[in-house]
Amino acid sequence: MKLNRVAIIGVGLIGASFGLALKERGLADEIYGFGRNEDNLKKAKARGIIDAYSTDITKVCDSADLVVLATPVGVFVEIAREISPFLKKGSIVIDVGSVKGRLVYELESIMPEGVHYVGTHPIAGSDKSGIEYARPDLFKDARCIITPTEKTDPESLSFILELWKDFGCNVELIDPMKHDEVYGAVSHLPHIIAYCLVNTIGQIDSEYIRYAGQGFKDTTRIALSSPELWRDIVVYNRDNLLKLLEVFEKNIEELKRLLEEASSEEIKELFTKAQELRRRLK
Amino acid sequence: MKLNRVAIIGVGLIGASFGLALKERGLADEIYGFGRNEDNLKKAKARGIIDAYSTDITKVCDSADLVVLATPVGVFVEIAREISPFLKKGSIVIDVGSVKGRLVYELESIMPEGVHYVGTHPIAGSDKSGIEYARPDLFKDARCIITPTEKTDPESLSFILELWKDFGCNVELIDPMKHDEVYGAVSHLPHIIAYCLVNTIGQIDSEYIRYAGQGFKDTTRIALSSPELWRDIVVYNRDNLLKLLEVFEKNIEELKRLLEEASSEEIKELFTKAQELRRRLK
Repeated sequence: MKLNRVAIIGVGLIGASFGLALKERGLADEIYGFGRNEDNLKKAKARGIIDAYSTDITKVCDSADLVVLATPVGVFVEIAREISPFLKKGSIVIDVGSVKGRLVYELESIMPEGVHYVGTHPIAGSDKSGIEYARPDLFKDARCIITPTEKTDPESLSFILELWKDFGCNVELIDPMKHDEVYGAVSHLPHIIAYCLVNTIGQIDSEYIRYAGQGFKDTTRIALSSPELWRDIVVYNRDNLLKLLEVFEKNIEELKRLLEEASSEEIKELFTKAQELRRRLK
Repeated sequence: MKLNRVAIIGVGLIGASFGLALKERGLADEIYGFGRNEDNLKKAKARGIIDAYSTDITKVCDSADLVVLATPVGVFVEIAREISPFLKKGSIVIDVGSVKGRLVYELESIMPEGVHYVGTHPIAGSDKSGIEYARPDLFKDARCIITPTEKTDPESLSFILELWKDFGCNVELIDPMKHDEVYGAVSHLPHIIAYCLVNTIGQIDSEYIRYAGQGFKDTTRIALSSPELWRDIVVYNRDNLLKLLEVFEKNIEELKRLLEEASSEEIKELFTKAQELRRRLK
């Protein structure tokens, strides 16, 4: 398992950590970076995350064995279309986005004959973004979801699966559409709720925020996450999110009703049900 | 500042930590505990948190210089009524509940002539409850809100203020009604949301929970909190919470609208606004 050239498109937290993980294992002869911000690429080169960079994306991709899409998910399709004519036969393209679903099928369909796409989602993002927080062991013990389709090349799938395992991930294969149902619920929905909760305080009285304790801090930590990344994720997964938000709103409505009635016992039951389910997580 | 007998009514996380903090400083000759669960009182005595206990609340309170109400807030009034005829002249009664507001005025009105009530709220609770987690330094660097009224005895207020400061708290005085507006927003509302978020996952598919990452864990940590404690808190503060939930729901509705329209830029703006406000907290 050795790669000549790896192209990292978007050298942020995940892209840069991917580069560092490759370097640490000596798995690539050359890592080539592309991004919108040349200063960031310079920094990435100075820190030894990438060996070279260009602001010409076709030059970065045309001789790569592996292309890693690590930009915000909203530009994956546009980038795939742009690089597609230049991709090397036999090369593999992966993305590391938090949305899969129809995006996987779309990216797959853009690939030229002989280029193999595999959708992946390492659950290693955080509210911190940028190369400042990149580290070679970011993926250690993280879950990584791979979303093969019936068209996914088995050899490429196996190669990418082993690569993520090598990075320390617990890899799991899930259907792309199912991925978005699951992560819509356990990740995208909580982000929306955290952003909305903080904005609620802002609308009531932003000065109240100084009274916030650890509970508020934890509940809203993910509201520190990159608005650009998360805008793309929620827009892509909006069909699932709209359904999830309906269910969530029904829960809020039910609780309002119980508060109006001061139905202590029923409120306790709802809280207990939540506590029990939450206890399944360490 | 030395007390003969202190009565701790409800020997849980906060009550027991209060006892330990007193002991550590040698501030009380005798700490007497009361609770519903005799096994718990035995454990508290064995651990040196209290010196003695009784399941007869009047015996615990009748010679106390300081009575600390540390049960769930829902039983404060009932307990205050029960002990009121037995309280010593010149004694001080405090509570450590997360709700103040009209509860403060109610407790104050129950006190007999010559007994001084002071409402306090140390922000030191957690999702962990029970004496197992009690420690003498629980209040160190925690905020403690004291909610005097126009009737609060100045000497008792000053004594209690110094006591919490001595325990390491950053003490702040706030009007009782204002307290509930503020903590409704930054603490009670997030608890309701966390419980509702977990129940939403339970209704969609409780198996999804195993895919949850750090974001979900943090966002819902407070759903591990005691349902009994939190039921009482949200029911007492329901007028504020109903208003807060309206504002929160409007934020959710607005986001749904933007998702339906796939209005990326406006979603990014909302997320950015939340991120900026959240950044004010470390």
